[in-house]
Amino acid sequence: MTEIEIGRNKRAKSAYAFDDIAIVPTRRTRDPQDVSTAWAIDAYQFSMPILAAPMDSVVSPETAIEIGKLGGLGVLDLEGLWTRYDKPEKLLEEISKLKDSEATARMQQIYAEPIKPELIRDRIAQIRAGGVTVSAALSPQRTAQFSDVVLKAGVDLFVIRGNTVSAEHVAKDSEPLNLKKFIYELDVPVIVGGVANYTAALHLMRTGAAGVLVGFGGGAASTTRAVLGIHAPMATAVADVAGARRDYMDESGGRYVHVIADGGLGTSGDIVKAIACGADAVMIGSILARSTDAPGRGWHWGQEAFHAELPRGHRVRVEQTGSLKQILTGPSSSADGASNIVGALARSMATTGYSDLKEFQRVEVVIAPYVKS
Amino acid sequence: MTEIEIGRNKRAKSAYAFDDIAIVPTRRTRDPQDVSTAWAIDAYQFSMPILAAPMDSVVSPETAIEIGKLGGLGVLDLEGLWTRYDKPEKLLEEISKLKDSEATARMQQIYAEPIKPELIRDRIAQIRAGGVTVSAALSPQRTAQFSDVVLKAGVDLFVIRGNTVSAEHVAKDSEPLNLKKFIYELDVPVIVGGVANYTAALHLMRTGAAGVLVGFGGGAASTTRAVLGIHAPMATAVADVAGARRDYMDESGGRYVHVIADGGLGTSGDIVKAIACGADAVMIGSILARSTDAPGRGWHWGQEAFHAELPRGHRVRVEQTGSLKQILTGPSSSADGASNIVGALARSMATTGYSDLKEFQRVEVVIAPYVKS
Amino acid sequence: MTEIEIGRNKRAKSAYAFDDIAIVPTRRTRDPQDVSTAWAIDAYQFSMPILAAPMDSVVSPETAIEIGKLGGLGVLDLEGLWTRYDKPEKLLEEISKLKDSEATARMQQIYAEPIKPELIRDRIAQIRAGGVTVSAALSPQRTAQFSDVVLKAGVDLFVIRGNTVSAEHVAKDSEPLNLKKFIYELDVPVIVGGVANYTAALHLMRTGAAGVLVGFGGGAASTTRAVLGIHAPMATAVADVAGARRDYMDESGGRYVHVIADGGLGTSGDIVKAIACGADAVMIGSILARSTDAPGRGWHWGQEAFHAELPRGHRVRVEQTGSLKQILTGPSSSADGASNIVGALARSMATTGYSDLKEFQRVEVVIAPYVKS
Amino acid sequence: MTEIEIGRNKRAKSAYAFDDIAIVPTRRTRDPQDVSTAWAIDAYQFSMPILAAPMDSVVSPETAIEIGKLGGLGVLDLEGLWTRYDKPEKLLEEISKLKDSEATARMQQIYAEPIKPELIRDRIAQIRAGGVTVSAALSPQRTAQFSDVVLKAGVDLFVIRGNTVSAEHVAKDSEPLNLKKFIYELDVPVIVGGVANYTAALHLMRTGAAGVLVGFGGGAASTTRAVLGIHAPMATAVADVAGARRDYMDESGGRYVHVIADGGLGTSGDIVKAIACGADAVMIGSILARSTDAPGRGWHWGQEAFHAELPRGHRVRVEQTGSLKQILTGPSSSADGASNIVGALARSMATTGYSDLKEFQRVEVVIAPYVKS
Repeated sequence: MTEIEIGRNKRAKSAYAFDDIAIVPTRRTRDPQDVSTAWAIDAYQFSMPILAAPMDSVVSPETAIEIGKLGGLGVLDLEGLWTRYDKPEKLLEEISKLKDSEATARMQQIYAEPIKPELIRDRIAQIRAGGVTVSAALSPQRTAQFSDVVLKAGVDLFVIRGNTVSAEHVAKDSEPLNLKKFIYELDVPVIVGGVANYTAALHLMRTGAAGVLVGFGGGAASTTRAVLGIHAPMATAVADVAGARRDYMDESGGRYVHVIADGGLGTSGDIVKAIACGADAVMIGSILARSTDAPGRGWHWGQEAFHAELPRGHRVRVEQTGSLKQILTGPSSSADGASNIVGALARSMATTGYSDLKEFQRVEVVIAPYVKS
Repeated sequence: MTEIEIGRNKRAKSAYAFDDIAIVPTRRTRDPQDVSTAWAIDAYQFSMPILAAPMDSVVSPETAIEIGKLGGLGVLDLEGLWTRYDKPEKLLEEISKLKDSEATARMQQIYAEPIKPELIRDRIAQIRAGGVTVSAALSPQRTAQFSDVVLKAGVDLFVIRGNTVSAEHVAKDSEPLNLKKFIYELDVPVIVGGVANYTAALHLMRTGAAGVLVGFGGGAASTTRAVLGIHAPMATAVADVAGARRDYMDESGGRYVHVIADGGLGTSGDIVKAIACGADAVMIGSILARSTDAPGRGWHWGQEAFHAELPRGHRVRVEQTGSLKQILTGPSSSADGASNIVGALARSMATTGYSDLKEFQRVEVVIAPYVKS
Repeated sequence: MTEIEIGRNKRAKSAYAFDDIAIVPTRRTRDPQDVSTAWAIDAYQFSMPILAAPMDSVVSPETAIEIGKLGGLGVLDLEGLWTRYDKPEKLLEEISKLKDSEATARMQQIYAEPIKPELIRDRIAQIRAGGVTVSAALSPQRTAQFSDVVLKAGVDLFVIRGNTVSAEHVAKDSEPLNLKKFIYELDVPVIVGGVANYTAALHLMRTGAAGVLVGFGGGAASTTRAVLGIHAPMATAVADVAGARRDYMDESGGRYVHVIADGGLGTSGDIVKAIACGADAVMIGSILARSTDAPGRGWHWGQEAFHAELPRGHRVRVEQTGSLKQILTGPSSSADGASNIVGALARSMATTGYSDLKEFQRVEVVIAPYVKS
Repeated sequence: MTEIEIGRNKRAKSAYAFDDIAIVPTRRTRDPQDVSTAWAIDAYQFSMPILAAPMDSVVSPETAIEIGKLGGLGVLDLEGLWTRYDKPEKLLEEISKLKDSEATARMQQIYAEPIKPELIRDRIAQIRAGGVTVSAALSPQRTAQFSDVVLKAGVDLFVIRGNTVSAEHVAKDSEPLNLKKFIYELDVPVIVGGVANYTAALHLMRTGAAGVLVGFGGGAASTTRAVLGIHAPMATAVADVAGARRDYMDESGGRYVHVIADGGLGTSGDIVKAIACGADAVMIGSILARSTDAPGRGWHWGQEAFHAELPRGHRVRVEQTGSLKQILTGPSSSADGASNIVGALARSMATTGYSDLKEFQRVEVVIAPYVKS
């Protein structure tokens, strides 16, 4: 990629967001019913390439089961309200009624409650009883502390998710999580991230992860760019990490690490573009937080929103657009890219003549600098 | 065209919308009255290069006749209200009064009514009785089913219009429309599209079509980009398809296929730019929906707006700016590019020193990255 | 300049508006009082490079005198209200009170009144009696008809101003103005335009004009881009025409034709940038229409706004910011670039270390793609 | 850096603002507590690279002491209210209550009061008594007049700050400040600016300055671009001046001149980016004006806002977000980049794996053309 001189002492590449690009139809079209949106990772099969983000506004044990039955994967946050409180419903209710001015401070209080190992166990058991693939997430900081409990409780896909997760975390006082050793010793496949560029992704793939999350956590619910100055435009991030997947497959003699876009996915159009840039699947938050079944009750927030010292996000109001089923597989009676998202993906694939997701990663895209509003 | 690296695994070209470009005057000027805006396709002559889009908010049998008398071509949608209902006026009235919250759902109901072959026959007869060139449109999905009725009823120019129409549609269960065979066997000239890039257009030209529609259907009334991630900025799409016209003329030993821009045309300035990029004519919807004669009664919508499972557009409110005559040929007493559009085209040609549309396709344009509001 | 491919059939250069660029200070600074903003064309000297545009909202005989006394040049429009009506004040008053919905139609009526040769004579005499340099403007269409009257009345600088004026106007039915012959035979220096690119400017310079107006007429008061699709971003237009000035000076053995930016000048910062791009002077409308002395009474409009068949502009409301004197030479008590514009020019020259306008045309500029609002 | 042709007569480079760029995480991460934000210039040590701008809305003697105790450096403006009035509090109160329409005119009056040498002495003594590093600022125009008073009063770091300060100021009537001689003869280290490009910075470094301020003064409180047409996008300006620092270090045999970004710093993210572009420290105004302790009482303004003849800024309303301590070092309960800015800087460094500021100047940045709002 061409570097541009910002000034005499600094050069930079251009990076692109999903909004900067668009897919263009080419010479072939196809019937939507002939298209497959199936996705498989390790031994687990899904009829859609959709993971629900481990956020309290999106995934509860109940919605994890519902999403699994609809063909996707709900990932429960093991550091959220469900493992801190026996009955979190009344706190979710309270959060949905907080005034804007008091929300951050009160949520900092609510999330100060310690995590209970027995609740981790119970929540996982509840999802397993639902008959779906079981997945749950910890942050890198807590993985060492709680992974035993989690594994004993029995997850199928273990997710380690942080704002930025690297294979080389440096710490003076504490022993950081040795991802390579940890993943090697684990019996279950691990999905780990966020990661946002080629080199970091390649290092993470070498830890033995089954999948990497591309992004910087949080997405719509975060103000990371204003607070930290850090931003990884997602089209570029996904395409860079897909490049690492290709090179790592070569270097490892054929191990295929799944690339999962996590962030910047506000519409079905964004999901389509993520796959066009090379993602195998997507982890979505805000789109699902808009369902009438979502635990967030019309609100959406991430862990950064109630960080004790440096909150980097807001609880945001989201318009409720339908049931989880309507949002995932329709039918839809709205037209803003937030319902029947799997139907939209299938139609986009059909319109451009592709029949499965792996092929669709090759679809042509353009950089479209202007969007008429 | 130079490709840019979005990330390690993906490259893309830049694509431009009409809003990204502008026409620049050069060294010659001309009197507007010395300019011809005439357009001819097959045996049919028009004093303006304007086709009215087959949309219920734009073309009724009455407005098709009126537009024909003014020098353009009105294309009736044979899958709209006029072929589903004997008296659609009361439904058009109802649609114009629906609340936003209920519009999509109610329109899904209204358009669930089956199409009646005898109404196709009657509507076409009515337009023919008006003494103008007769044109009507079907979608590719319905062309096989209704084309016999249409041909028997007698159209001069047959339009096949879909979001994306390709010469190579693949279907497992049903036999798709074989465009090449269909057009070859037909006695009347066919205009077909949408198409948005060079290769797809070249393939479509090889089917024997008299003209191709450039665009992705719907234009202002659609939210295709948000729902499907698909977007074909129109200046680039028209210029690419005009390149296919040139190459196909060479390969076919001289057959000239008309390029008709269809979408993204919200002002007379956009129409001027479409021709500057190589279009022979334009198909417009929203500009005409703004007439006081339009069947939409101040509203505008496309077929995607009431798709049963995945609606991809909205019924949108449009400001009414004058009669069809005022909008097409003036006189105008407003200044927003939505009235006297043929006068504007002539003046733009005169200002840059060109005397007919074919010459004007060579006018110089610039990329103008900033528009002062 | 590098051409970019818009699509297979069309290439274009990038063009830049004043808003796209900015001036950067370099290594030298200077005292503002040591800076000269003087400008001279032919035998006429001015303390500022400012021409007031021939528009009824900007220049009346009274304001022409006032502007002349302040050091600039007021150009009276000889096709405006002052030559159609004996007492235009009451019509200016009426225009300032029209409702938006009726303004265009009523102004079309008002401007339908014929031009009276005796009023041309009287208005010019009135300005001359004021003791300032006399300048007045006709459109190319009316120049043949009224130039005798104008010359007999006695102007110092004759202005021919149209949307696009070319040295090669083609007309079938009427004999167009032969600019070269006309200017050659004339005793007074002529300023002519608008012109927007290198080739057109070079041809216009060869007619013998003393100055060329760069722009497409109208500026802020016009919607030319939406209606005609025509737009000439001013930074590029001025720099291109300045290139023609340099090449014409070489070809003519030293004749220096003045380049006068006319359009897109909404702030003192824009005026500074016009000169930085190579302009010798600027013709401004909206900035002066904002004076409490302006005949427009808080409104601003151009000839296009009341064109009989294709109006391409609106009467626009402008905020009144001070007297003509405050706007031109201060002192200023507002900070939006619309007062003390000559002081701002001098300060900008001082900050970058230049002492006269000709030198300042070499100041360094940057393309600044983002403006924090 | 590649130059682009604006038009035939003018070429320009592209320049980038902080908003145009973003930092991207790479392969290493680190614990925030292992990161040092320490900064030292000459003999003075600070725990954060933060200078409070010499503006009446930001620094009073009291806040200078408070900022010093928190680990930063408060710079008192010696041409503001504190050296014009014995008791400026009531004027600050009045300014905070002025109506918008009268603010500029009244502030022009208030700042017309002469500066009193004895007040310079007293204010400096008051800060020194607070036990912190003492710093105060004069404009280049007043430095010759008051520097003796200032030095006798005893400052540790002397700041000369103007919109544009050059090493080669030219004046006809008065003897301009000879910076090289002045700085050479001075016993205390001098920080001088603003400067915005490589050449000007190199010349300023050769005067012997300990640090240079990069920017054009004023930042958020200024409308310099609209009034003067001058604008120096800060990412480019800082990177250019950092290039001058490197070249001057080579030419001087090792003298390290500090680069201090001054302007365009509205969020902690902007501060992070300034250092990423090569700044050693930042001078901030508006962020601190938002503290409940700030003398501006919820308003912010610069010297340009009340310039007697050409005001180039406005008094602007700023939202109060917390105490000085909360804004600088937290804890924070808001998430907009305007509190715990030092914590945000440390976290950004940790996330990208850097442990001190000098290293962090090498962090990777991208140009991100689109920001989803």
